[in-house]
Amino acid sequence: MSAAEAPPFAPGASFQEMWRELLPLGRDPGTGGYRRFAWTAAEAECRSWFEQAAKARGLLHETDRNGNQWAWLGDPAAGDAVVTGSHLDSVPDGGAFDGPLGVVSALAALDELHRRGARPRRPLGVVAFADEEGARFGVACAGSRLAAGRLDPEHARGLRDAGGTTLARAMELAGHDPAGLGPDPGRLARIGAFVELHIEQGRALKRPVGVASAIWPHGRWRFDFRGEANHAGTTRLPDRRDPMLTYANTVLAARKKARLAGALATFGKVEVRPGGVNAVPGLVRGWLDSRAPDHTTLEELVDSIGRAAAERGARDGVRVAVTRESYSPLVEFPHGLRDRLAALLGDAPLLPTGAGHDAGILSADLPTAMLFVRNPTGVSHAPAEHATEDDCAAGVAALADVLEALACG
Amino acid sequence: MSAAEAPPFAPGASFQEMWRELLPLGRDPGTGGYRRFAWTAAEAECRSWFEQAAKARGLLHETDRNGNQWAWLGDPAAGDAVVTGSHLDSVPDGGAFDGPLGVVSALAALDELHRRGARPRRPLGVVAFADEEGARFGVACAGSRLAAGRLDPEHARGLRDAGGTTLARAMELAGHDPAGLGPDPGRLARIGAFVELHIEQGRALKRPVGVASAIWPHGRWRFDFRGEANHAGTTRLPDRRDPMLTYANTVLAARKKARLAGALATFGKVEVRPGGVNAVPGLVRGWLDSRAPDHTTLEELVDSIGRAAAERGARDGVRVAVTRESYSPLVEFPHGLRDRLAALLGDAPLLPTGAGHDAGILSADLPTAMLFVRNPTGVSHAPAEHATEDDCAAGVAALADVLEALACG
Repeated sequence: MSAAEAPPFAPGASFQEMWRELLPLGRDPGTGGYRRFAWTAAEAECRSWFEQAAKARGLLHETDRNGNQWAWLGDPAAGDAVVTGSHLDSVPDGGAFDGPLGVVSALAALDELHRRGARPRRPLGVVAFADEEGARFGVACAGSRLAAGRLDPEHARGLRDAGGTTLARAMELAGHDPAGLGPDPGRLARIGAFVELHIEQGRALKRPVGVASAIWPHGRWRFDFRGEANHAGTTRLPDRRDPMLTYANTVLAARKKARLAGALATFGKVEVRPGGVNAVPGLVRGWLDSRAPDHTTLEELVDSIGRAAAERGARDGVRVAVTRESYSPLVEFPHGLRDRLAALLGDAPLLPTGAGHDAGILSADLPTAMLFVRNPTGVSHAPAEHATEDDCAAGVAALADVLEALACG
Repeated sequence: MSAAEAPPFAPGASFQEMWRELLPLGRDPGTGGYRRFAWTAAEAECRSWFEQAAKARGLLHETDRNGNQWAWLGDPAAGDAVVTGSHLDSVPDGGAFDGPLGVVSALAALDELHRRGARPRRPLGVVAFADEEGARFGVACAGSRLAAGRLDPEHARGLRDAGGTTLARAMELAGHDPAGLGPDPGRLARIGAFVELHIEQGRALKRPVGVASAIWPHGRWRFDFRGEANHAGTTRLPDRRDPMLTYANTVLAARKKARLAGALATFGKVEVRPGGVNAVPGLVRGWLDSRAPDHTTLEELVDSIGRAAAERGARDGVRVAVTRESYSPLVEFPHGLRDRLAALLGDAPLLPTGAGHDAGILSADLPTAMLFVRNPTGVSHAPAEHATEDDCAAGVAALADVLEALACG
């Protein structure tokens, strides 16, 4: 590159060095897992790390109105940008790779392009989306949903965490004005393609790198089981209206029905009121996460779980109410981009996933694709989540190949 | 009573006035239930109320080393005292009657004795035991257990609440020195009889007042179900080790086995790690409360629930560990005192209860008895807990009869 053409880019810390910098941030010493929840101190450390990593490379750093962070090589206003990246926040006690692998690999891929002497003809962006996991406020992919106009900003501002703090207040406390939340079509219009690299979250991938074919439709449903709180030591069994029984039966019914439907159903969060050891609960609230290969299967599955809950509730004297809290329809990644990347990466295998991603949210607005890096145990959203160093290096090389083909071709 | 013999006693506020004073203390505006947990600000208000009510009557007030409050008519050092009372703390979102009814009725009964011109020959005491419910630190009847030497003070000081605060620290913050916790045999030796009045907690009592025959053996067991935390959207069902399934199956097994044994079993508290909607849990921790008419039935019931949990755990790839956190053996109230009270109260019905009480803890050290006041719905440990005004007045009259017979005869 000649001095006149070249952006003021300088390679930064190596993949391994960036990884080591991120490892301690938001890590719980007891569980070894990560607690990088949106707009907390731990997440602010991650944001600060990203900004430093961007600036150290001479990239233009900006945080958009919805809290997403961007680092630009070249002028994004030129349009048709090629963007890569992922997120830095985590689920409760999540692993180190889900999210950060995509961000670190993106920065490392820019360094690799520089080493190759590649000349980008399109602006190149690295993004770290805000609040992808939804661990604190209950809405996954909040940053990309807001930008794409798929989450009402007024509703978003009013979302509350377990301690009762609203998203608006949490943002304010973190120094970010919540008034700016909302659709950002101008920003998205400048992006010609978005490619997210992510650790695989199952054991389906047998080679170091694969390409996503689709994201299963998935959602969250809140089941409220209402009975009557009472004394556990004095209330005769026939006098009870114990919602824990209805909940327990629903957990087992959900698993069985999911298995028969070739789908997934999980109760991973439950709240009990009053929650005393010696009290029959008055309220048990359980959240169902369910996913299936297609919309009809998912809808029928959740309906049948709801019916099973209501039937058992009638026996237990317990009322059951089901509220859909979020839903993400099937995402079929555009075949053109998907097949081009697979071919570029030596006929990389195509595979679907049950997990939502920012790339899925944005797929309705612009061409998106995903690369997966192999996960030997399939463990995800837990401290044991892992990818080998060799596979991570293969992921960076593959992402660099993709960026070079898309932006420098 | 002549001026020389009479203690400086003056009747205080009426039962209804005392009840109105207590009603707002520690009441949650959302649920309408009480949250008077040991060594909290709400409980301190109750303590302060008791001290004022005692002093307003000219009673000698003292708080013992274990945090129990006493109000004396006459000199307790004289020995062979007749003591009545109960507790002021509550379960989470408990009712207004469980505990306070016994304390308020005790003070009202002293006033009634005065109105009758009764002359106590033995010291009369009113007690409000500390931390009867164990709602905050997990050990029920902590105040009476400590005094009776049935709770190790070192262990007690180290008990932690859900926020990680130790009992020792909580006591310090409330201005009470935890160094003094421990056996108080001298204090108990001065008591000749303890009679606790309590709202009935089931629907067994058909008359306004009854007398307790026995307290069922009962205990708390912690069930730890350990599987493997994982991603709810990407982990195939056969690859899961989901402890929520094992927990759910155990809840249903416990109910069925308790029914067949003529006993009680309840899971009213559960914790999930990591507790994310989109995470298969790694750990589900559920607390079993179980009670039965005799020790052998209870032991066999809990063993069989543990076996059912382990068998299902083997199917689910989940390890199950059961820890007994507390156990209270059968209490058979001494027949002499019990039958005397029943006869005195017009052949009041005798009835057993599944609930633990301070009177049960102290029954090994001194003669104890209990009066129950009718509970029309049987609801207990919940805001709807209730006794009618007439039945409460009958309770006060019955307690005054008992105190008069024991202390003034």
